[in-house]
This record gives sequence, C-alpha cells and structure tokens, in this order.
Amino acid sequence: MKIAVINPNSTQSMTDKIAASARAVAGHGVEIEGRTGHGAPASIEGHHDEVMCAPHLLREVREAVEGGADAIVVACFDDPAIGACREISTGPVIGICEAGVKAASMIATSFSVVTTLPRSVPVIEELVRRYGLEHQCRKVRSAEIPVLALEEEGSNAAALVQAEITRAIAEDKCEAIVLGCAGMADLAQELSRKNGLPVIDGVAIATKMAEALVGAGLTTSKIGAYAAPLVK
Amino acid sequence: MKIAVINPNSTQSMTDKIAASARAVAGHGVEIEGRTGHGAPASIEGHHDEVMCAPHLLREVREAVEGGADAIVVACFDDPAIGACREISTGPVIGICEAGVKAASMIATSFSVVTTLPRSVPVIEELVRRYGLEHQCRKVRSAEIPVLALEEEGSNAAALVQAEITRAIAEDKCEAIVLGCAGMADLAQELSRKNGLPVIDGVAIATKMAEALVGAGLTTSKIGAYAAPLVK
Amino acid sequence: MKIAVINPNSTQSMTDKIAASARAVAGHGVEIEGRTGHGAPASIEGHHDEVMCAPHLLREVREAVEGGADAIVVACFDDPAIGACREISTGPVIGICEAGVKAASMIATSFSVVTTLPRSVPVIEELVRRYGLEHQCRKVRSAEIPVLALEEEGSNAAALVQAEITRAIAEDKCEAIVLGCAGMADLAQELSRKNGLPVIDGVAIATKMAEALVGAGLTTSKIGAYAAPLVK
Amino acid sequence: MKIAVINPNSTQSMTDKIAASARAVAGHGVEIEGRTGHGAPASIEGHHDEVMCAPHLLREVREAVEGGADAIVVACFDDPAIGACREISTGPVIGICEAGVKAASMIATSFSVVTTLPRSVPVIEELVRRYGLEHQCRKVRSAEIPVLALEEEGSNAAALVQAEITRAIAEDKCEAIVLGCAGMADLAQELSRKNGLPVIDGVAIATKMAEALVGAGLTTSKIGAYAAPLVK
Amino acid sequence: MKIAVINPNSTQSMTDKIAASARAVAGHGVEIEGRTGHGAPASIEGHHDEVMCAPHLLREVREAVEGGADAIVVACFDDPAIGACREISTGPVIGICEAGVKAASMIATSFSVVTTLPRSVPVIEELVRRYGLEHQCRKVRSAEIPVLALEEEGSNAAALVQAEITRAIAEDKCEAIVLGCAGMADLAQELSRKNGLPVIDGVAIATKMAEALVGAGLTTSKIGAYAAPLVK
Amino acid sequence: MKIAVINPNSTQSMTDKIAASARAVAGHGVEIEGRTGHGAPASIEGHHDEVMCAPHLLREVREAVEGGADAIVVACFDDPAIGACREISTGPVIGICEAGVKAASMIATSFSVVTTLPRSVPVIEELVRRYGLEHQCRKVRSAEIPVLALEEEGSNAAALVQAEITRAIAEDKCEAIVLGCAGMADLAQELSRKNGLPVIDGVAIATKMAEALVGAGLTTSKIGAYAAPLVK
Repeated sequence: MKIAVINPNSTQSMTDKIAASARAVAGHGVEIEGRTGHGAPASIEGHHDEVMCAPHLLREVREAVEGGADAIVVACFDDPAIGACREISTGPVIGICEAGVKAASMIATSFSVVTTLPRSVPVIEELVRRYGLEHQCRKVRSAEIPVLALEEEGSNAAALVQAEITRAIAEDKCEAIVLGCAGMADLAQELSRKNGLPVIDGVAIATKMAEALVGAGLTTSKIGAYAAPLVK
Repeated sequence: MKIAVINPNSTQSMTDKIAASARAVAGHGVEIEGRTGHGAPASIEGHHDEVMCAPHLLREVREAVEGGADAIVVACFDDPAIGACREISTGPVIGICEAGVKAASMIATSFSVVTTLPRSVPVIEELVRRYGLEHQCRKVRSAEIPVLALEEEGSNAAALVQAEITRAIAEDKCEAIVLGCAGMADLAQELSRKNGLPVIDGVAIATKMAEALVGAGLTTSKIGAYAAPLVK
Repeated sequence: MKIAVINPNSTQSMTDKIAASARAVAGHGVEIEGRTGHGAPASIEGHHDEVMCAPHLLREVREAVEGGADAIVVACFDDPAIGACREISTGPVIGICEAGVKAASMIATSFSVVTTLPRSVPVIEELVRRYGLEHQCRKVRSAEIPVLALEEEGSNAAALVQAEITRAIAEDKCEAIVLGCAGMADLAQELSRKNGLPVIDGVAIATKMAEALVGAGLTTSKIGAYAAPLVK
Repeated sequence: MKIAVINPNSTQSMTDKIAASARAVAGHGVEIEGRTGHGAPASIEGHHDEVMCAPHLLREVREAVEGGADAIVVACFDDPAIGACREISTGPVIGICEAGVKAASMIATSFSVVTTLPRSVPVIEELVRRYGLEHQCRKVRSAEIPVLALEEEGSNAAALVQAEITRAIAEDKCEAIVLGCAGMADLAQELSRKNGLPVIDGVAIATKMAEALVGAGLTTSKIGAYAAPLVK
Repeated sequence: MKIAVINPNSTQSMTDKIAASARAVAGHGVEIEGRTGHGAPASIEGHHDEVMCAPHLLREVREAVEGGADAIVVACFDDPAIGACREISTGPVIGICEAGVKAASMIATSFSVVTTLPRSVPVIEELVRRYGLEHQCRKVRSAEIPVLALEEEGSNAAALVQAEITRAIAEDKCEAIVLGCAGMADLAQELSRKNGLPVIDGVAIATKMAEALVGAGLTTSKIGAYAAPLVK
Repeated sequence: MKIAVINPNSTQSMTDKIAASARAVAGHGVEIEGRTGHGAPASIEGHHDEVMCAPHLLREVREAVEGGADAIVVACFDDPAIGACREISTGPVIGICEAGVKAASMIATSFSVVTTLPRSVPVIEELVRRYGLEHQCRKVRSAEIPVLALEEEGSNAAALVQAEITRAIAEDKCEAIVLGCAGMADLAQELSRKNGLPVIDGVAIATKMAEALVGAGLTTSKIGAYAAPLVK
C-alpha cells in the first residue's frame, strides 16, 4: 500500500517532519510518500493562504494518484480543498483535522484543540462544526505562535504549546488534546506522556485512518459530489 | 459607490448577464463593475472547479480593490473562497448563496433552492448549514442542467428550472425559491410573477446587500479571521 | 421609495433618534417615515412590554402600508411581532435584531451583542438561535442600564456600553459588536472608530436591508405563514 | 388547587370544550377555571391573530392570579405570549404545544403533529424547534380545516383529522400523534383507541403538568427573564 | 394509582429517602412503592455502574408492572436503561434527569445542573443534549462529592452542593437549578428557599409527571421502538 | 497486536461470521480474537436486549483485556454499553455503528443506513445524532428482517437488503450505504460491487479503526468519564 502524505505548503522541513511522523506509525508494507506543495505559500495561516496552496495541492494529488498512491493524507489542519482532492482521487482522502477530531471523539467524551495563531481559531471552529463534533469540542485554543516558529531550532514554540495544554486541561476539563497544526507532529508523543491524557497528532492518525479505509476496501464514493470533475 | 461583481469562471457571456442583473437593481450613483475569472474553468460544477477558479477570483478582487471598489460580490452560488476574498478586502464581500438564502429567510418562513447539476446539491446543502439556515431550507433541488446550458440560446434550461420550481412548491410547501446559480439571474423576475411567490436571484440581492452594508458604513472586520494575509 | 421606521414604544425622543439614524444612511430618494407606538409602554424591557406594544405596532404598520410605505423597519431589538407585521404587509418587514446579526455574520466570523438590561439577554439569545446564528454569536451581554437611561442627557449609559464592549473584545474574542437596543443607534459610529472593529447599529442596517430587498424587487411571501390574516 | 385554563380567543364554545377536557382529567380537589379571551379574535390562525389575542390573554392571566389561581394553562397550540404570562404570574404557566410535545417525547421516540390550517404549520415547526424537539418530531401536518370548523356540528373536521393521522402513521412512521389545536381536545381519547397509538390532547396534558409543577412545589423563576414587568 | 419509584442502586437508605420525597408530593390516592436494585452496585457513578444496575432495574420494573404499578419512576440522574424499561411497561416510565430538565425548561429560560462527581458531568451533558435542551442548560456542574457521601450523617455534602449553587448563580446566570442526583432529593426545598430560585428535585417532579401522564390517560407507545421485547 | 471482536449476543454463528469479516481485513501481525456474549440474548433487537447483553459484554471485555487485547470492537450496530467498555479498558473500544458512520462521513457527503427491523431505526437515528452526523445521514432504513434471518441458509434476507439499498439510492440520493447490523458483514463487498457505491460493513471498518488508533499510539482517556469504575 502506498499513502501520499502531502504538505500543502512549500516548506520542505515541514514535509520531512510530517513524513517522519507518518512513517513512524505506518503499518507493515505501507510506503509513505512525502510530498510538498512547491510554489504554495511557506505556511498556511488563514483563508488566503489556503486558496493559494490549493492548486499546488491538487497537482500533488494528481501526481500521487498517477504514481499509484492508494490514499491521500492532506497534512494541514485547515483541511484545505479536501472535496476537490476527493473528486480527483478514487482512494480515500483524509485531512488531519477531520482525522484528529474524529479519533478524539472515539477515545474521549471531550477534547480541546491547540493550534498556532489566533486567526486560525475560527477556521478550525467551523471545521469542527462541519464535522458535527462541536458538542464534544470544549474549545479551540491558540498558542499564539506562527506556524514556522515550529520549524525554528531554539524557538519557544513547544513550551507555548505545553502552556496552552496546561490551560486547556485546567479550564476546559477536556479529556484529550488535538494538536491543531501539522508542524506539531513531533510533539504529540511526549506531550501525551507528560500530560497524562491523549494528545493527538493529526498526521499520525490520518495516516492510520487512510490505511484503515484502504484496508477495509473502502474508496471515495463516485456517484455524487465527489465524482470526477467534469471536462469542460 | 463602486461594486465589483465578479464572475469567478471564465465565461464572458455569463459575466455580461450577471453584470446586467446587478445594474438592473443598482442604486442611484452606484457603479457596477463586471469582472471575469479569466483563466478559470468555464463553469464551476463541483469542488475541483471551485479550487481552480479561486486564485483567479482573488486576482480580480485585488484589482477591484486597487481600482477603488467599495464592495465585492462573488457571483457563483458555491460562494467560493469568500473567506480569502474578505482577507484581502476592507469593504464587504458577499457571496450570492449567502445573500440569497439570508434574504429568503427574511421574507418567507421557508425556501427551497433550485440549482443546476445534482453534484452541486451537497455543496449547497453544506453552505446552507454553515449559514445556519437549514431549519428554513426545505430542500436543495437540481434541475439537472449543466451550468453552460443556461448560456445556450434555445436550450430548454429555463423550462427545466420552471418544472423544478413547480415540484418544489407542490412537494416542499416552500414559501420562496432561491435560484442556485448565477447563470439563472435573468430568469428570476418572470419566474416570480409566474409562480406567485418570491423567486430570488442571488446576484441582484447580493448587489443590494453590498450596497446596504457600505451604505450603513460597515466594513469587514480586520481583527480576527479576516485580517489581511500575513506576509511570509 | 418610502420606508416606515417604527419605534414600537411610546417614547418620542427615541423615535426621533431612530429616524435620524435611518435618515443618515437612507439612499437617494428614500423617504424615512418615523413612527411611534403611541399608547404602548415607554420602553420594551421583557416579554410583557413586547406584548403590550404589539397591537400599537400593528396599527402603525397598517397606517404606514396604507400611506404607501414600501417596507417596514421594526426598531426594537426584541423583534416584536415581526410575523404579524409581515402578514399585514406586502413589502418586506425587518427587525433590527435580525438585520443586525445577519449583517454581522457577513462581515465577521463572530460577534457579541451588547444590550441594556440583563432580563433582555435570554430574549435575544432565543432570537439569535431562531435566526440560526448561535454558532457565530460569542455572547449576549448586558451593560446593566435601563432602556430609557439612553435617552437621559448626562447619564453614564454610553460609558457603560463602552465598558461592556471592552470586556466583549477581551473575553469573547469576537470580531464585531451588535448594539442590542434601538436606543443605542447614535453611538455606533463613534464606538466603531474607537474600538477598531465593526459596531453595528440595527436601525441603520435594517433600513439599508429594507432598501436592498425593495430594490431587488423582493416582497414578503404571501403563500404560507405570512399570508394576509383571515377575516373571521 | 386552582388552575385557570384560558382560551385566548373569544369563542365561548371552545372555552367550554377546553374546560371540559381539563376537568375530565383534573386531580382530586383541583378546581378548573375556564376563561375566555373576550374581545380577542374568534380563532387564532396565524401571527396576527396571536398578537391581537395577547393583551386579552394577559388580562385573563392577571385576573386569574388575583383570583388565586395556582397555575395557568394557555389553551392555544401556538403558545401565544407564554413569556409575558410567566412574567405576571408566580405559579407555573404552560402552553398546550409545549406540554403536548414534551409529553410525547417521554412516551414515544417520535411524534407527528396534526393541526388545522397549513398556515399554522411553520408556526408550530418553529415552536418545536424552540423547545428542542425537532429530532423527535417527524412532521407537522395540517388537516386543512379552519379552527372554527371544529366547533360546527356536522362538519367533517373530525374525519379530516382522522385521515391526516392515518397518513402520519403510514408515511412518517411516528409513534405518537399530538393534536395541534385546542379545539381538538374532545377527539383525543377516541382517536387513541381507534389508531392504536397515543394521541395527545395538549389541553389535558398541560392541565396535568400544571398540577404536577404546583404539586412539586415549583414556581416560575423570578430572577431573570420571567421577573415581574418593570414599572415605567 | 400506584407509582413504583425505583432506586436502581442497592443502597436502601437512598431508596427510603427517594420514596419519602415521592410520597411528600404524591397526589390524593396515589400509592408510592419504593423499590431497590438489590444486587446492583451501591451507587451509580459512571457508565459501568449504570450497566451493572440495569438488569436489576428491569427486574424491579417487571415486578412492579406485575404488581399493578401504573407508572415507573427511575430514580437515578443518569436515566439508566429508560428505553428498556419502556419496552417492558405499558404505563409511562420517567427518568429523573428527563423530568428535572424538562420541568426546568418550563419555569425558567435557563438552568444549571449540580451533580456529584466530575465523571458524571459528561454523562449528564449527553442526556441534556439527547433531550434537546442544551440551549437552555447553562452548565452541568459537579460538587465534587461521591454519591454515598449524601447518605452519611455529618458529611459536608450539603454544604458543597450549596457552594456549587452559589457559583452557578453568579457565574452561569442561570434562572433555575436542577439537582443532579437522586440522593439530593431531601435538599431541594430548603435550597429553593435559601437561594431564591427554583431548585428542582428530579424525584419529586418525575413522580408528579408520572401522575400527570397517567392522569391524562397516556401510556407508552407500543408501535415502534418501545414495543415489547421480541421473544427469541 | 491483538484485537478482540466481541459479538455481544449469544449466537455463535454470528460470532464466526463477524470474526471472519475482521480477519479478512486484519493487518499484518494482527490477531483477531472472536468472542461471544454467552448467556446474552440470541440477538439484539431493541433496548431490552441491549441491557440484557451488556453485563456479558463487559465480562468478555474484561477477559479480553486480561488476555492482552490491545483494542476492542463491539460488534453490534446498537453500540451497546460502549462507555462502560471504555471505562474497563485502556486500549481503544469501538462500536461498529460509530466506526461505520464516521468512515462513511469521510468517503461520501451523505449516506443511508440499512438495518434489520423497524424497531431498530429510532435506536440508530439516536446514535447518529449522538455522533453528530445527522446532517450527513439521509435516512435510516429497515429491510424488515429479523436479525437471525441473516443466519439462516436459504432465507431471502440478502435479497431484502439489496432491495432496500436500491430504494435508498433512488429515493435518498445517498452516496454510500452503511449496513446496520453485524450479521450483514459478509454481504458488504458484493453489494458494493453490484451497486456501484461504497457499502460499509461496520465490523471490517471498526477493526481497521481499532488497528489505526492502536497503531497511532492512542488509548482511551482515563482522566474523565472513561476513568476506571470506582470501587465501592
């Protein structure tokens, strides 16, 4: 099985981190193909960046499908252009927000999300509502760090994420944390251990859910909204 | 006041029709600037087309803003990239689906939407839910016509729209109809008269709502999700 | 075009303020007719006052319609008797709460409402839910002032409203404010400027939305719940 | 214990029927006081009638409270002016729609409502949503009869109600029926028997729920929205 | 009329307290039969305890029905196994959470629940959502006391409940309190008096609602989900 | 990795079929342990059966955990006692309804469920609502077959399921089907092929999701509602 894990922004170090996170959990015989949205913005911080990355993301999806990928993981927590990716793919396509919050909903009665910048909070709140999980989501929180700070050696980004998790546990009484940025993928395991509750990395769980759907023989439905795009 | 009415697809005849619909209702001293998503797909029929039109749409928004537009109407019923358009604009940005269903909600207790292809139905259902109006929306219906059939002289598109409205009134007991495609803009008035209930053209009402917001001195909030995109 | 802006309570100074707010934004050739609910309570602070004002409001609507009004604005934030007003009117009828929160929903991803007395908070919460916007409404807040304090020269009402807006921005992280009382109409513009986010006066935006609906050729649907009252 | 059962319209024969329905189920030592909205419209068929009956209803509530009523039943399925009635009462105030649908929700997983005129359907749908029971309400249906037809000897109103119940059971697969008009109070028992499922008369169950709340020592909360009206 | 009030746990002192609460409000000629879930856990604090009590509860329901009970009250705030109890009963079956929150919704625009342990909070939140009342429920709060502390003489349980109510009124601005444990039945009356708002004991109001349903001639619907269990 | 797939009813042939379905999709090195609710009802058709199976289910969970199971699949579409199973397990516990509908929500914009008996429809509707997916679920349908008919050679059960799927596609315009009974596990693959859309077997996908959660290092949260049961 081959799963393409696509970083829709153009920052290669983030792709490397994401692919490593996916590979760390990939099942026996599952090949992880990391892909980068070359030409896209360096990070996705808001609707505009999302739009500008999307055509690059679709190009990567198309190439991955042609290269034999059985499933696609879109490794940005805004779940950009998921519907469009599904239209051009027959295998499953999973966004890391959708995977993260749906996993959280199965191992805890409630969760909070910790993301990067405040401007992403309403974007994620809307996604959570679209996925029907606002009743299990205590709060979407921002650690007030730019996405790329997560890539800088020596930044205090990890400490700020930890501080926000501490607040989430105390104030929200949530039972799990979902990390709201692909760039936090390398932090989840230690944060879980340190905080004594599940801290979910969307990249890892999206990879495993993609494996799960493929393994169960499921593909994207092609009889409705996700049918192949019409040729004009 | 100047309002840019942007057709995010690349079909000029549709832009002309849309601009005419906007001009027909524009207030005293309001200039309507029709714009076309040159380079975008010829029509928007699904998520993929939406993604591919979005960067072109943003370019048009940017040019319109630089040219002094006070507000933007995005004239595609999928309300593509509205959040991104709001990030790069200070004046109000209105999609024709949002304007259409919110207007319907103020003149009727219920409405049905009549759109073009079946594949657009779930897209519009999700928009209606995002806008919080699913309790007033009886049904999203498709007249089973491609978008561009609305541009062809002699096509039976108008008759199919009328037939679907007849079904909507009989089966849904809706009190108003929202036309679910910018390409239907020229049909609304006669359909209203013939069917004895409000038939809403999103282009006309979005234009007037844009005027209304500007006239009331309202602009897009710049302190949160719609702040200007970050420079990388 | 003639728009009747009806103050459903009996306080003439409030009518004057409301009509001034409407006139300040009215379009070219739009006549604003201020009307007062003579005989109604002096202010509407709760359900009982709402009931007692309603027949007077209907009388004013009827007279306005007979006098050729093309649309009606009901200038009380409890949106009293809107359904009944729509039954006896063919032009659009808009309440200032509905107009205010629907406008907010198009220029911001979230908003908070600042009203007068605590007892009005649940009334407005229920309206927001009825309009389907509870997912965008961060909080309905009370400045703890009686409605008529807004009419008294030298009262600290404006300062209390400002203080509550300060709290709303800090605690709710809302992107816009909707003023929850017609008596606050004169405060909106300066509050917007001072606080750096849209502060919405329901009277102004309802007037413009009424213009918008009339200008788009839309009237209240007469085939269902808003049909003319039955003669007994 | 004394319970005032108020018919908010002015039709005495309906009051008599309603009071009989309440008396038929009243507990030991419970006095039922039937009251009529003298001066109100002869029937309540829409928002306008609701507004015009409300001040008369409040007058009857006030007199009933002064006369020692421990609780109030508002015997119109539109639940008119309930909030206002609660403001001027310390005992519980119950509308027959609220009582009917909440009772249905405790004895069945789903129910349909059968009311009189089509124009009342959206009014009741909004009430059901306000009460949070739209997930248990299969459908609100109209038997297409005017309210007062239920008062006419020899009318086919009862047959039309039965026909609509038959359709509701077959098409909605509902487990209970709520009769959507106080004027149907005398039909419930036989319809239950004939159709083999609970057919709920709102008048009877509202009377019993009023008894229940009083018997449990509960009164209307006076610290918030239902506090006594402010003296101007 | 005979109403079986069943304590699904095995603690007899709790049954006694519950039965006393029911008897204190029972109507003329209503016999209250207290029953205990002998063999069940000593208290129900979470899903596991709920499952382990359920077969014992069903046994008590069956015996009560055979003994002529006209209605059943399940006196645990988790409303355990209500659907199953309804399948084996023709009379109404009411849980004290459902009765408590539905009563609260009729005498106040909002309420908060005060329960025992934090782990019960999500259980009750889910019930409130299932009953469709999350828009009226300000918060579910825990007084951080084990259920059985309510049975110990000299424990500070009552003081902790009072302290949580004080917080609820100040922070939640709720208009009523629902006590979230059958073991708090004896506290309601004094807490109501002391705090100046309705404090609802689910046992008392469930008993009265059972009386109400029986008195109105209503029984559990037997044509759908609550039909008698199938014989295998 | 070891996954216990527990059939909570006592029918061994169903366990065999379920275990076979799980084994058919199990990943490399994943051991599937089929378990039967010996002593439970022969099938679960309603709330009563659910309650009676639950203690047996918990016993099997406990034994599985002691035997080293890393995750639990509860193979009944009513998702019985999931919360309780989570309390006594540290690994993930997944019900086949939750897994089925959440998988459907990621590969299609809408789905319908096809279950066995009509009485299970409301049970599943409530589950779908609890999981927050009612906006993607077009309809829960019954093929009108008893659960055990699926075990009988030569029964027409499979044909009835096919007929209901045909109706679902035509009438609901759903994009995927979720089979609403563990006993249908062997039908999914062929039904998918024949009907040209994803037909989801909850057993297979729950097994894969259990693998996914374990593989991503996720366990049930132990700091809230799913903490280990309290010792009395």
